Amino acid sequence: MSTNPEFFAFNPATEEPLEGNFLNTTLLELDVVVKQAVTDFDVYRKKDKNAIADFLDQIGKEIVNLGDALLERCHLETALPMTRLQGERGRTVGQLQLFASFVREGSWIEAKIDQAQPDRAPLPKSDIRQMLLPLGPVAVFGASNFPLAFSVAGGDTVSALAAGCPVVFKGHPAHPGTSALVASAFEKAIAVCGMPKGTFTLVQGNTNELGAALVSHPSIKAVGFTGSFGGGKALFDLANARPEPIPVFAEMGSTNPVFILPEILKEKATAIASGMAVSIAQGVGQFCTNPGLAFIQKSASADEFYNQLIQNISETPAGTMLTAGIGKTYQKNIENTLALENVIELAHGKGASAANAGVATVFKTAIATYFKTPSLAEENFGPSQVLVEATTKEEILKAARNLEGHLTATVHGTLMDLENYKELLEILELKVGRILINGYPTGVEVCHAMVHGGPYPATTAPQSTSVGTQAIKRFVRPVCFQDYPAFLLPNALKNENPDQIMRFVDGAFSNEGIG
Amino acid sequence: MSTNPEFFAFNPATEEPLEGNFLNTTLLELDVVVKQAVTDFDVYRKKDKNAIADFLDQIGKEIVNLGDALLERCHLETALPMTRLQGERGRTVGQLQLFASFVREGSWIEAKIDQAQPDRAPLPKSDIRQMLLPLGPVAVFGASNFPLAFSVAGGDTVSALAAGCPVVFKGHPAHPGTSALVASAFEKAIAVCGMPKGTFTLVQGNTNELGAALVSHPSIKAVGFTGSFGGGKALFDLANARPEPIPVFAEMGSTNPVFILPEILKEKATAIASGMAVSIAQGVGQFCTNPGLAFIQKSASADEFYNQLIQNISETPAGTMLTAGIGKTYQKNIENTLALENVIELAHGKGASAANAGVATVFKTAIATYFKTPSLAEENFGPSQVLVEATTKEEILKAARNLEGHLTATVHGTLMDLENYKELLEILELKVGRILINGYPTGVEVCHAMVHGGPYPATTAPQSTSVGTQAIKRFVRPVCFQDYPAFLLPNALKNENPDQIMRFVDGAFSNEGIG
Repeated sequence: MSTNPEFFAFNPATEEPLEGNFLNTTLLELDVVVKQAVTDFDVYRKKDKNAIADFLDQIGKEIVNLGDALLERCHLETALPMTRLQGERGRTVGQLQLFASFVREGSWIEAKIDQAQPDRAPLPKSDIRQMLLPLGPVAVFGASNFPLAFSVAGGDTVSALAAGCPVVFKGHPAHPGTSALVASAFEKAIAVCGMPKGTFTLVQGNTNELGAALVSHPSIKAVGFTGSFGGGKALFDLANARPEPIPVFAEMGSTNPVFILPEILKEKATAIASGMAVSIAQGVGQFCTNPGLAFIQKSASADEFYNQLIQNISETPAGTMLTAGIGKTYQKNIENTLALENVIELAHGKGASAANAGVATVFKTAIATYFKTPSLAEENFGPSQVLVEATTKEEILKAARNLEGHLTATVHGTLMDLENYKELLEILELKVGRILINGYPTGVEVCHAMVHGGPYPATTAPQSTSVGTQAIKRFVRPVCFQDYPAFLLPNALKNENPDQIMRFVDGAFSNEGIG
Repeated sequence: MSTNPEFFAFNPATEEPLEGNFLNTTLLELDVVVKQAVTDFDVYRKKDKNAIADFLDQIGKEIVNLGDALLERCHLETALPMTRLQGERGRTVGQLQLFASFVREGSWIEAKIDQAQPDRAPLPKSDIRQMLLPLGPVAVFGASNFPLAFSVAGGDTVSALAAGCPVVFKGHPAHPGTSALVASAFEKAIAVCGMPKGTFTLVQGNTNELGAALVSHPSIKAVGFTGSFGGGKALFDLANARPEPIPVFAEMGSTNPVFILPEILKEKATAIASGMAVSIAQGVGQFCTNPGLAFIQKSASADEFYNQLIQNISETPAGTMLTAGIGKTYQKNIENTLALENVIELAHGKGASAANAGVATVFKTAIATYFKTPSLAEENFGPSQVLVEATTKEEILKAARNLEGHLTATVHGTLMDLENYKELLEILELKVGRILINGYPTGVEVCHAMVHGGPYPATTAPQSTSVGTQAIKRFVRPVCFQDYPAFLLPNALKNENPDQIMRFVDGAFSNEGIG
């Protein structure tokens, strides 16, 4: 019998509690969990890279082994359709496999060797070697909008484990059943692979207190977070106020501005409008990379674009949002925007068939109004977009220069457009983590070259990405070994290069051994 | 005629003002300077890598062209001996050359290419490419203790310029004449190389207000700092409290613990003691990597070590410290340590021949006292060391586990010692940026594999180094280009790989072109 207060998951459409009760992890339990992670870090960080890769693969297998029970529970908790959740599971497992292969390849630890020069004058040079080592136990906060791919087994967890860091995972209170099921897959993988049990632990709760205590725990060395600006900024401030400040990698979303240039609009107004309608409404707009803001220049083709967008959006069915809270906030923001002067509702989707339905909505305004109305540049998490009509290139460039940090920016243009708007692209290089040409920002490929990040306030850590293999770099730091005897050097730094990884030796890349 | 209040440099030994008056940069002037850096960033960041490399080389040449006038002024302002300053100039120029060659080689921008897979099911894969791009104007604060190598043309400035970031440099008020001379070398190099003038600007002042305004300026995107914990932490807090927080790379020094293991003590007690005495007193102890704390185990050989250390330290002449303030703080800390119970003064160097002389001092205490007296673990910037005597291996390991973050740790041991104390080395991997075997931490090699950094409180940015070519990574962030037409891609990401740099293409390293 536990005295912990319980909490429940809710059906997002009805606000009725779902079957199953969950216990709030107490602060005392949390302390035990983190201390276990510290103890087990000493075991886990010394595991061979192949052992860690096998472990990541095994987690994927155990998630698949959970079968449809996982997807069904997830659907109940999030209202996300089964087909979407099937895809998301595939992405989650694929991500584990990608990191496994990345860890097996092994070059990511960035081994650097500067050999000794004992005869150098005036002073001899020591033998100096460097590699990346894991930071220690990492706290990860799950996102509500990707209950699999950005949650318990999401990119933050996987990249931290790949780096050699244990993870203490704070489950999102909107899908505790999903979290518990995925955590059970970790437990099985830990047992199968002989990893110490503190390598991964799920803690659950529906209060801010638990998350704050986790970030404040002196043994936590870094934080991964995906969610709202308010949540991420609060953790960032908390982490910086600690006696030992720690890095917070918070991805806090953005409005992902889209620029539609004049020539391509003449050629493809209807196609771009149709693509945009899909991107706006995908996942009921609940994507960090949702295109919430678009710029277009007044023209006959622009009218064609509007007409197509109106048609497509008006045919877009409403979808149940992830939680009642998210639905209410979305609705309130829609009403606030509707109340603004000189902003019109260009299009809205099919009406709500159920409670907590997110109705696709596109607003339109002139760029002069946009410049005077800061709230139009703010994210409204859900299937909405503010379409801003300009008349000149200079206005477009000014809007780009005034942007805060975003995850993505998209430019639709012919080759001639892109040549004419080179300056726009150069401005955007300073504003976002990813620039797309003639695409749609929703859909973030998990690969080596992806950047899912960007300048503040899109993230608290503009120098990093939370998606793709480079996410591993968030949880390591360089350590230098000077004049180490060979038997003490880690494999990656041994002369023989037993793992045949790519290294930087005396200023040149090589995957050969030395001497 | 300016209405700015003036300030002066002082002779460190006499506290008499030196010839030459310097104007405090006003906040209005600072704003103009930063805005110029913003404007010129747009020009500088587009410069070819060879143009940037040539510029770095030219700065070095112009510093050499300043001739002995630079060293003479520097000697007056810092009391550092001319031979030391000659060496430091060589190090400064060498560092510029190393970064120039690193930039010319070009692979540091970490180009990553994941090629498109238009036929992939269920969804096609876009073409995704990533590289590192500069953050924007960087604020750098000069250190007092390396008036050339960690000041105007120091590692922070050079790595920021190498990354493509303009630098606004706040000169250290203890050596304004040296700073002005080195800044004149930048001006000449800017003119020779046709760089925009805002690429580098020196601002000077003897108030905290100027530095605070610089870090708070909305257009500054990162901060480099070397100095005291108080100074670095204040800038860190200021930067995090900005509307847009920015990274602060503050290197704040440490006590650089040394562990002398039992077997090597039997073999080399006198040699290690002699080496240690030199390391303690080098540069009047005014090195970030000064060995301020050492652990040794009670034994007959330890007594031999103490005797040699006493002899060498007692013969060590006092040196003039960098500023009267540094000298007073050093002296006060020495007196405070002398007043501690159960701490003895084991050795002290030759008395002061002049005012503001730092006298080498070694304290000795038992490990039980050390554990009870937190101030013994704190840095006293100057030629002092606290020698802690333990009786067991367990005490040594406990001391290591209790360490805060340091720049370096040093272990003296035979192969057998190192085998027996493997656990000590494993603990130190989590505590410092660099571990040295059988060496002395003073003397930081500028090379690819160096780490001059470490966990907090040694730095505010444990994931970085401020010395060595990897310092460049502090001033960049990854940006992703999705489905870019070839003509818009930067050289580093073009299929042809015109610069023949090493890239990560579809998960494998290659310096070839694609397709």
